[in-house]
Amino acid sequence: MHALILGAAGMIGRRLTAAFVADGQVGGQPLDALTLVDVLQPQAPEGFSGTVKAEAADLSVPGAADAAVAGRPDLIVHLAAVVSGEAEANLELGYRVNLDGTRLLLEAIRRLSEAEGYRPRLVFTSSLAVFGQPLPPVIGDDWGLTPASSYGTQKAMGELLLADYSRRGIIDGIGLRLPTICVRPGKPNKAASGFFSGIIREPLAGQPAILPVADTVRHWFASPAAATGFLVHAAGIDLAPLGLRRNLTMPGISATVAEEIEALRRVGGDAAVALIRREPDAAVARIIETWPEAFDTARALALGFRADASFDAIVDHHVAETGHHGPEAG
Amino acid sequence: MHALILGAAGMIGRRLTAAFVADGQVGGQPLDALTLVDVLQPQAPEGFSGTVKAEAADLSVPGAADAAVAGRPDLIVHLAAVVSGEAEANLELGYRVNLDGTRLLLEAIRRLSEAEGYRPRLVFTSSLAVFGQPLPPVIGDDWGLTPASSYGTQKAMGELLLADYSRRGIIDGIGLRLPTICVRPGKPNKAASGFFSGIIREPLAGQPAILPVADTVRHWFASPAAATGFLVHAAGIDLAPLGLRRNLTMPGISATVAEEIEALRRVGGDAAVALIRREPDAAVARIIETWPEAFDTARALALGFRADASFDAIVDHHVAETGHHGPEAG
Repeated sequence: MHALILGAAGMIGRRLTAAFVADGQVGGQPLDALTLVDVLQPQAPEGFSGTVKAEAADLSVPGAADAAVAGRPDLIVHLAAVVSGEAEANLELGYRVNLDGTRLLLEAIRRLSEAEGYRPRLVFTSSLAVFGQPLPPVIGDDWGLTPASSYGTQKAMGELLLADYSRRGIIDGIGLRLPTICVRPGKPNKAASGFFSGIIREPLAGQPAILPVADTVRHWFASPAAATGFLVHAAGIDLAPLGLRRNLTMPGISATVAEEIEALRRVGGDAAVALIRREPDAAVARIIETWPEAFDTARALALGFRADASFDAIVDHHVAETGHHGPEAG
Repeated sequence: MHALILGAAGMIGRRLTAAFVADGQVGGQPLDALTLVDVLQPQAPEGFSGTVKAEAADLSVPGAADAAVAGRPDLIVHLAAVVSGEAEANLELGYRVNLDGTRLLLEAIRRLSEAEGYRPRLVFTSSLAVFGQPLPPVIGDDWGLTPASSYGTQKAMGELLLADYSRRGIIDGIGLRLPTICVRPGKPNKAASGFFSGIIREPLAGQPAILPVADTVRHWFASPAAATGFLVHAAGIDLAPLGLRRNLTMPGISATVAEEIEALRRVGGDAAVALIRREPDAAVARIIETWPEAFDTARALALGFRADASFDAIVDHHVAETGHHGPEAG
């Protein structure tokens, strides 16, 4: 089978590529071709015996999606997007990449569908940003979407397109609303959510971290490994049980900042926790308090999607991958 | 104030035009200009002392929306759409008119917003078609949208755009999910929902009508007068209480086919009811059983939207407008 990853150069795209190569199969079918596309040319993976193409393309340019699907991939994983802050700052860019890019992809597939009955599996990454206030403490699978950002709006529109093109038999699609990734690797960034990872990642590396919100703040998390696992699982399972509801919130770990800090203490001790500096930021707190705290993901669980075991397990993943385990590690 | 009606030549558009002219004001502001746009040139209303423009335009053609809003209308009522059956039969046409048409309108407004701070009230008509299975017996304001048609998908996407452009301050928007209009005037048509009106309208005019479903089928109705009233109300009220949730299901009357028939009997007697011919149609029944039966429209009620008083009142409206009251009327 032939898999196409759009947005392959990103953090999740690279992990997914590695997972496909390590598995050598998707949903029980041997993987013999891999096409990787991103705005900057993705790195070809090592150790893959099949055909690899790695290409730079802007999928929001008409024709680019047609070129990307010209090889009739059996599986398309669509991760390509402009992130939340960028989509909010630049309305035109966000709608062009996140909405038009998705629609151009679906239309490219439709042309092949009508010409020759082509019908790929399409795995689309949506986001918790589709949810806006008011929200119940635990959000069920049937809760309505009222996004509080243009990014969330574009993802919600992508979900609707995915469901309609699936209903029409053009694709066999599934949309996954990923939890907030934690511990996100890399440098501290300016995203409002950055501290959720920062207060684990930085102290474990012996660096200070800033905590701008109260310890009682609760949110919904998945490790990079769990998020990659959702995509791998979605690529291989039977989607018929989804019916019309092709979009699912993925299971996660609901944890407070206080619980995060205790998980950090278990691994890095009090010295790690002491590296967290409390600097309350009202602006960040106002954004964060509109975010979801927990979900009832019954449908995803029934389909076999599995969250991390606990927030401790999330931290253990990070320690295993980075080798960082606190300021006093020797 | 200046009002623009897009889709002014349709049944609701003509009634809304007449209501604005009769009122002479919208939300307490004197109406001095009226622009009417549809694919075929709308009729200019009689008895209006202000300026009237009536223009033919295809709003899905780039530039047409810019021309339509060039007069900086204070109020825009966007009714223009390709109907459900057409959008299902022709994917490209439906997305072009129902999605791109709405987006081109919002983008035309955005250009004026950025250039000169223009911010009109925008009233958008959505549809019960945004709801798909599974549905609870009574659907609340927070229920998620899983449309079972391309038309419903396009309306749901329009709702999301309306909310995002409102949140950004480009428009002051509200989307109304109208109940099924009953009694719809005119000839019998092939819409799956046609019989809901047909079994009242035809017998009252002394004509036979076909009933393809069981008497127990329940659905959600508004008279043409109530639907027009929703639009007039939405044009004039303060929308700040809506917050992010700019789209609302309108109140209606939940009635079964049996209740419809009893309302018909009250006006037209047994002779009218005898004109209903039961011809069960499994295909129609399968479509109808996926439709919503009733809603809890607490938010719309709190904002002052009012349904018809009863299904009897719906029939009375029709009798008053048409003068038809059964086969034995003299």
